[in-house]
Amino acid sequence: MSANSLHELFVEELKDLYDAEHQITEALPKMRQAASSTQLKKAFEDHLAMTEKQIKRLEQVFEALDQKPSRKTCKGMQGLIKEGSEIISEKMDSDVRDAALITAAQKVEHYEIASYGSVRTFANLMGHDRAAKLLQQTLDEEGQTDEKLTQIAETLNQRANQ
Amino acid sequence: MSANSLHELFVEELKDLYDAEHQITEALPKMRQAASSTQLKKAFEDHLAMTEKQIKRLEQVFEALDQKPSRKTCKGMQGLIKEGSEIISEKMDSDVRDAALITAAQKVEHYEIASYGSVRTFANLMGHDRAAKLLQQTLDEEGQTDEKLTQIAETLNQRANQ
Repeated sequence: MSANSLHELFVEELKDLYDAEHQITEALPKMRQAASSTQLKKAFEDHLAMTEKQIKRLEQVFEALDQKPSRKTCKGMQGLIKEGSEIISEKMDSDVRDAALITAAQKVEHYEIASYGSVRTFANLMGHDRAAKLLQQTLDEEGQTDEKLTQIAETLNQRANQ
Repeated sequence: MSANSLHELFVEELKDLYDAEHQITEALPKMRQAASSTQLKKAFEDHLAMTEKQIKRLEQVFEALDQKPSRKTCKGMQGLIKEGSEIISEKMDSDVRDAALITAAQKVEHYEIASYGSVRTFANLMGHDRAAKLLQQTLDEEGQTDEKLTQIAETLNQRANQ
């Protein structure tokens, strides 16, 4: 990462997020397939639809900044997705795997909460009102997704503990 | 990761966290050195002292479960720390670097918030009261550290925007 102004850092972070969201769209169908609970499968489907919407929203952010949307490999998300892949590839009791998949998904959510929080703050500070509003919308959605996963985990963890 | 019971998953996640915390203790001195603001340097010093305390606390958790503390490479944290290393190694305006370092540190915090949240929930569900209490303590501290970084970011982002 090279940045000599807050604006450049802001754009770099957006590229990182744009790549992260794409990585998530590739991972979610595999997580959906590995899940046993229909409730969890549905949550991953909803999450995929939301991620696709968030990618479009990031494109609107780039547009508002007169930037062409582009991806910069997000190493953080690569690591998080590697953890998810391990859960999918290992031999594991199916209910325990569901509990593990939720844990992995919540780590992904929290990465996004931290990242969108930072870029929303940068946008506000530099007076990019349209970008700030769009980023806040996604940040709110990420928080809601995390809460939804916590709720599903309550049921699925109990099942994994039986 | 291989786990056939929620208890095994719980222990695997603890090993992942135990490794993550060790990785953080190695990264923080480098982040401290790369930071320009004395306020940020101090925040990283405090964070290091707290991380060392949290490692001891994890050892108490292992002990409460009659497990020997051991590390399992945390790929998620490896990715997050790679992002931090990039910020350190690139040529960058010093105030902008400070803003970038805080962003990286908050991603690390959120990884920990998600992980400690999951293991605390597992501990509660399985009636490991002592472990749950210790993990909740760390979870609370991680939330406080994230808030403190947000506060410092307010000043440092403005400086980076000048």
